[in-house]
Amino acid sequence: MPVRRVTLDEIAQAAGVSVPMVSRVLNGRGHVSPPKRELIQDLLRQHSYQPRKARKRTAAGLIHVVFEEIDCAVELEHLRGMEPVARDAGVGLVVTAAPRYIPGPTDGVVLVATGGSPRLTADLDRRGVPAVALDPTARVLSAPTVGAANWSGARAATAHLLELGHRRLAMISGSLELLGSRMRCDGFRSLAGDSAVVERGEFTYASGLSAGLRLLDRADRPTAIFAASDDLALGVYEAARRLGLRVPDDISVVGFDDVPAARWASPPLTTVRQPLRDMGRLAADTVLRLAHGEAPDSENMELGTHLIVRASTAPAI
Amino acid sequence: MPVRRVTLDEIAQAAGVSVPMVSRVLNGRGHVSPPKRELIQDLLRQHSYQPRKARKRTAAGLIHVVFEEIDCAVELEHLRGMEPVARDAGVGLVVTAAPRYIPGPTDGVVLVATGGSPRLTADLDRRGVPAVALDPTARVLSAPTVGAANWSGARAATAHLLELGHRRLAMISGSLELLGSRMRCDGFRSLAGDSAVVERGEFTYASGLSAGLRLLDRADRPTAIFAASDDLALGVYEAARRLGLRVPDDISVVGFDDVPAARWASPPLTTVRQPLRDMGRLAADTVLRLAHGEAPDSENMELGTHLIVRASTAPAI
Repeated sequence: MPVRRVTLDEIAQAAGVSVPMVSRVLNGRGHVSPPKRELIQDLLRQHSYQPRKARKRTAAGLIHVVFEEIDCAVELEHLRGMEPVARDAGVGLVVTAAPRYIPGPTDGVVLVATGGSPRLTADLDRRGVPAVALDPTARVLSAPTVGAANWSGARAATAHLLELGHRRLAMISGSLELLGSRMRCDGFRSLAGDSAVVERGEFTYASGLSAGLRLLDRADRPTAIFAASDDLALGVYEAARRLGLRVPDDISVVGFDDVPAARWASPPLTTVRQPLRDMGRLAADTVLRLAHGEAPDSENMELGTHLIVRASTAPAI
Repeated sequence: MPVRRVTLDEIAQAAGVSVPMVSRVLNGRGHVSPPKRELIQDLLRQHSYQPRKARKRTAAGLIHVVFEEIDCAVELEHLRGMEPVARDAGVGLVVTAAPRYIPGPTDGVVLVATGGSPRLTADLDRRGVPAVALDPTARVLSAPTVGAANWSGARAATAHLLELGHRRLAMISGSLELLGSRMRCDGFRSLAGDSAVVERGEFTYASGLSAGLRLLDRADRPTAIFAASDDLALGVYEAARRLGLRVPDDISVVGFDDVPAARWASPPLTTVRQPLRDMGRLAADTVLRLAHGEAPDSENMELGTHLIVRASTAPAI
């Protein structure tokens, strides 16, 4: 994959100024105080900022983002990644939940964590609308996909728990019908072994709470739990609290995603970081390339995950 | 304000089925199993479902949602409220962060927690684009506003702490340049008195953590803290944890918003519920009315807030 271009947003963030101010420096128009101008120019140089090649305006000026349901922090992060790309390209970003079809003109569609209904995908095919699958649930669609290294991330989480001396590990999975969920499960089993306990759940807090209560109530209670999403992990926190157990003293917990709530949990959650915003950015960029008749960088893009160790994991006693 | 119509989404949720299935029952077309059909018909009757009056398609088929920055759970909830209204109306919902202007055609704009830049509002005025201010930061815009009963909510939170016997109360506020923030502060002071400690912060976790550390380190440590947002309250949780204090045993905490993370906090957070999704729904509905040349229900709509008591507050010792 080619090196990602730094965006105006990132330069603005690093400089602590607004995007319009960065534009003014780039265009040499409008007032910017000399010290700010210098700081921004330094950052542009440091990051070898290259303006995006001017593209012809797309036909519709809109890309559509299709969610199964708009309901979690993961999707908000994806959206935050897509928004600046669309804005830079002068294209509107339309959000929709489980639409049966895309009304009106569109330049392309990003399907987020959904295969899209058969009716929707048939409609897109018929109209020749380009599509990209972000965090694909299944490889049914003939579209480029953008995902994360789920298997490797789950394996890294498991390695961390083993290194801390934990031997009674358990996992709470998401629905195994989802591709990413299955990859996380396989990554865990690759180190924990096929006999390790896996509670099947869904990617929700409620599911983490009920599975957590079941696991922590077992006679051979695990000393560490790998939850396949941060929402699940926060449910496990609550299960522990209800049973009078402390995280990490009595039970170590690792999540997956690194949504903002992971940092804000008490104790802050050790988790596997998915580059959610970068994934959104890449998906939006890819659908715009397709809309311009260009080829994607690759058909199946997997961005790296890595473990963030915070305060919810401790050595086994 | 007129009684809100129940939406297809809500019926679908209550029945545990998809929106298209509810449509099929309404239209008498397509297959639905007899028990499901009956359940859906019962729900439609119970809620006196009235199909939205057919409206002519709007000119652009798009409404734009302008955020200052897409970065918190509150905004996600607003968006969840707006999405079904737009979908029902066959209108696309375009999300944008701090745009300088709205490119291309639009039927109307919802400004979320922002006055919009002067340049943007001037552009909208010039083009005659209708606008609605959701959770307005300031009453500068000549547009209908949709907000929540901030003052009353803050007062209810304060009353709850006083009823529990707390006498050393403190508050952590959001930026007092925001209208809603000032209302919450005034609501707190109306009961706690003008001499009560108010730490000024911003509506972020980081701000709650630093203000929490300052407050909990005082010689006359408060026994209860009212944080003006849930993000702030979660920062206070972490401040307490760092100082070896327990919530609610050593310190009671009340938040404001009732985002999903409030339910998932450990312990679950007592907070003031804003009807965030209803606010989004009403804002989208109002901008569509304006786009059709209809008058809004009212120029300044305030939806009710109420206290949700969970496990983060306890009697003063």
